[in-house]
Amino acid sequence: MRSAGFIVWLTGLSGSGKTTVARGLRDRLVASRSVEILDGDEMRETLSRGLGYSKADRTTNIYRIGYVAQLLARNGVMTIVSTISPYREGRNAVRERCAANGIPFVEVFLDAPLDVLAARDVKGLYKRALAGELLHFTGISDPYEPPESPDLQLHTDRETASESVQQVLATLQDRRLLPAID
Amino acid sequence: MRSAGFIVWLTGLSGSGKTTVARGLRDRLVASRSVEILDGDEMRETLSRGLGYSKADRTTNIYRIGYVAQLLARNGVMTIVSTISPYREGRNAVRERCAANGIPFVEVFLDAPLDVLAARDVKGLYKRALAGELLHFTGISDPYEPPESPDLQLHTDRETASESVQQVLATLQDRRLLPAID
Repeated sequence: MRSAGFIVWLTGLSGSGKTTVARGLRDRLVASRSVEILDGDEMRETLSRGLGYSKADRTTNIYRIGYVAQLLARNGVMTIVSTISPYREGRNAVRERCAANGIPFVEVFLDAPLDVLAARDVKGLYKRALAGELLHFTGISDPYEPPESPDLQLHTDRETASESVQQVLATLQDRRLLPAID
Repeated sequence: MRSAGFIVWLTGLSGSGKTTVARGLRDRLVASRSVEILDGDEMRETLSRGLGYSKADRTTNIYRIGYVAQLLARNGVMTIVSTISPYREGRNAVRERCAANGIPFVEVFLDAPLDVLAARDVKGLYKRALAGELLHFTGISDPYEPPESPDLQLHTDRETASESVQQVLATLQDRRLLPAID
């Protein structure tokens, strides 16, 4: 087994910048090492096809993604998970399993006020959710439980994507998961 | 991305030696590279928890395992899948996706006569299946479709595990997926 894989788990509301930060991070890392992004939307089409958005199904989804992330990380892959993952219970269960298995787990909370995200509404989903057209839309018609003690909290409404990525890189360096990169 | 990962897909009836060959193979490979075994029984407890044994559910199970195997292999992991995978359709779909994605896929059929396996009955399952206690038991109460043109066919009723492993290694070397190992 190679060592030195890890999991960066990006959690936050729709539109909070998870995909952007994930890709920015990958682009900074990929030159030196294996990087894989596990994107929530893609997982819904593959591993979790058929699951819905109840709390139980969302938790199953997170367990599956967490399981696959561990398989990758323990083989030396820098694994970036990008998924709303609204429930603390699911995220914490993955964190605990990683701890038990010696896999570094870095939880990053992409924090941005709901009203900013709803105003920006990149995918047009907030408008539909606020009109009552979307059941189980996180932040509007379904809960989001923010991390109580994330390893890093980004304020993506007032940082550039590049600044956010830089903070993740710095956190990884602080944890000695990456050498200094410039 | 690292290159040089691949998938060895071990298919065969219960008791045909998949787990034994998978572990033997891993032990021969692990010194030099990242190796991961995706074991059917473990997948049933993790990624595929809740799935049953209908043809549709078995196919979903194979797609999920195939998807994860590709994630690992494209990051340089030598990935050994060990699962009955009774339907040609599912196995061939995974093979085709691997081909489309440039991921080497080596199908190994662990062939052993049903009566030998039933007589050996390592887990006591054949006895129960023949008594009609197990629905959907592959080979007895559920179909097994042997590969039509596997990359390698092992006869595990008349080879030692070590001989079987050696044949897989030789096949990988022939395909230039491994350097010569002695």
